[in-house]
Amino acid sequence: MMFLSLPKLSSVAICFLVAATTKVDAFAAPKSMPVSKAVGGSINDASSTPQDIFEEFTKFLINHQTDMISKIEQADGSENAFSRDGWGAFANDNDSSDEQQTKSGGITRVIQGGNVVEKGACSLTIIRNGVLTADRAATIQGRQQQQEGDLVVQEGDIYSAAALSVVLHTRNPFVPTFRSDVRIFLVKSASDDSAVAWFGGGSDLTPYYLIDEDISKFHKDLKQMCDSHFPEGNEYNLSHAQMKQFCDEYFYLPARSEHRGTGGIFFDDLSATKATLSFVEDVATGWMPSWLPIVEKNGSKEFTEEQKHWQCLRRGRYLEFNLLYDRGVKFGLANANPRVEGVMVSAPPKIAFDYNHVPAEGSEEERLLKILKEPKDWTV
Amino acid sequence: MMFLSLPKLSSVAICFLVAATTKVDAFAAPKSMPVSKAVGGSINDASSTPQDIFEEFTKFLINHQTDMISKIEQADGSENAFSRDGWGAFANDNDSSDEQQTKSGGITRVIQGGNVVEKGACSLTIIRNGVLTADRAATIQGRQQQQEGDLVVQEGDIYSAAALSVVLHTRNPFVPTFRSDVRIFLVKSASDDSAVAWFGGGSDLTPYYLIDEDISKFHKDLKQMCDSHFPEGNEYNLSHAQMKQFCDEYFYLPARSEHRGTGGIFFDDLSATKATLSFVEDVATGWMPSWLPIVEKNGSKEFTEEQKHWQCLRRGRYLEFNLLYDRGVKFGLANANPRVEGVMVSAPPKIAFDYNHVPAEGSEEERLLKILKEPKDWTV
Repeated sequence: MMFLSLPKLSSVAICFLVAATTKVDAFAAPKSMPVSKAVGGSINDASSTPQDIFEEFTKFLINHQTDMISKIEQADGSENAFSRDGWGAFANDNDSSDEQQTKSGGITRVIQGGNVVEKGACSLTIIRNGVLTADRAATIQGRQQQQEGDLVVQEGDIYSAAALSVVLHTRNPFVPTFRSDVRIFLVKSASDDSAVAWFGGGSDLTPYYLIDEDISKFHKDLKQMCDSHFPEGNEYNLSHAQMKQFCDEYFYLPARSEHRGTGGIFFDDLSATKATLSFVEDVATGWMPSWLPIVEKNGSKEFTEEQKHWQCLRRGRYLEFNLLYDRGVKFGLANANPRVEGVMVSAPPKIAFDYNHVPAEGSEEERLLKILKEPKDWTV
Repeated sequence: MMFLSLPKLSSVAICFLVAATTKVDAFAAPKSMPVSKAVGGSINDASSTPQDIFEEFTKFLINHQTDMISKIEQADGSENAFSRDGWGAFANDNDSSDEQQTKSGGITRVIQGGNVVEKGACSLTIIRNGVLTADRAATIQGRQQQQEGDLVVQEGDIYSAAALSVVLHTRNPFVPTFRSDVRIFLVKSASDDSAVAWFGGGSDLTPYYLIDEDISKFHKDLKQMCDSHFPEGNEYNLSHAQMKQFCDEYFYLPARSEHRGTGGIFFDDLSATKATLSFVEDVATGWMPSWLPIVEKNGSKEFTEEQKHWQCLRRGRYLEFNLLYDRGVKFGLANANPRVEGVMVSAPPKIAFDYNHVPAEGSEEERLLKILKEPKDWTV
């Protein structure tokens, strides 16, 4: 089996985080995105087709959502459990596994007013067997770096996508907001049995106060994990440093010349193979081990009203990014009948906007702003 | 002197509300905008050139800003006076009037934490003698409904713009947020002495609770004022009903199928003449007489924490509109070195986002939502 080389294609998949629809619209490609090395069939075990990887990953996402919820509820310790809004194949708790393997659907789970998590969401979205329109197919085909033997993506080709995303807005300003997602995008030819799939995803922190050792540990753990999957000279041409840079570039507010948080990793257009599946699953299983120690360490720290207000001001920037620049939100809201509450679920619970707020010279608030203007390497 | 017929051109001017720059970028034209009747020189008094009208209106704006601030501070009754951030020709309080008549500049005035106004801004922006780029000139020329004798807008033509905008976010949820602006856009030919100018503007209310008689009075007062300037069969082909409709259409959140508030009036591309100058000045002088009676009537009403929370939730929609759809914000933030705090000054002070908040059946909150989905004529 041959694999397409479509370095920009799976950036489509990010939109499925929030776009609970089978209609795919065009959207602007980001200026700078990781382009993984074009890979041929050699990387894949012959027994693992892109469709197989898609199914295996989808099962992982469904289980991982449940696992996440349980861990977060336990850490939160409040009586505010996650609500569950299922749709499509997941409309009911007892939907059959058969249905879930053939139909589209998703589950939005939300906790509000918790002890640790002031507002948090963990959303599963699975789109199955959408049909590429002529426009969409042309856009995809136009993006690919065509190589001999590659498929030509055409109108009528079938796509599927699956994603799990999480955002945890914290009550305590000394615990950063945690955001992450993992996703897969699959295209199957309408005319033969060839198919191709890509992974995307990332994890990042948005702190309100810089507790350097926490941020450093988060990045060092990510680096260690990335290094184990992508040693120097790996065939995907990926490294932790690149993925950190892509993260900083993506979560950026140009009008403020400011990054949203202290970053993490961000990747897209990563050819889906058994090897990359293992990496992406590690990203997701690392969510709680990377964040919960920070909660345990700082979640009970006392904070002042001013510090809470600073957190609310910074959340204003979080929302600015989501509404002004986030591709998923833009795509989600542009659909004809958007599941708007599902799209907006990532919005922080309480937000403040002051005019011209300037932190005091030498303050911790000012130190954060400086780092957000010039991201640093936290792994050294 | 001949006047251009560029029914879409002055929609550019709305962007000057927030874009404190002399660089003009392209931006998408709105789907539906009022197209006023093309007018020739006959409407203008021969002694009032577009440049004269621009200067007269600009002087009015400068004085009116001071007048507004004074009235709002008096109504607010707190010790939190408006701050003053001047730039360009208005950087200092004592800048000479000569400088202000030849250079660009503006004044952003902001009150925060007042008794009546939880956060409010009144912003003056004046752009003088910008030069149209080839791209921009082509865009303008492409939009115009060319008539015999009309100018051809070309690269190098000179534009000026002036605007005064106000937004008053209220502390008490029984007093609606008031928003309004008036603006002018002037283009002068580089090759001869011909020129043309357009007005734009509007006023609208964003209530959190519907007190019908207040909303009705606001609209009836506007109607009376509009009727006096634009009687049936007027040469501008304008009416209060049209301007109300344009307002409802502009302040609309498509993803939620919901209008932002209960509207008011909205107009654009209105040929600048002595007659329309008088109308636009009436719009601005009507700001406080239309809003202060509501403050006097409801500003001291007691409210619960739940009612305040509802106001914060609704403010989330206000911000959604501003960041997702408002042309001025989009344009303002797209500039190379945006005065970002000036652009974001319209953001409400405290905002909340709950997931899937559904008001109780039969509640006042639910009644508001229904009206926002299907705007009504408040003048009957």
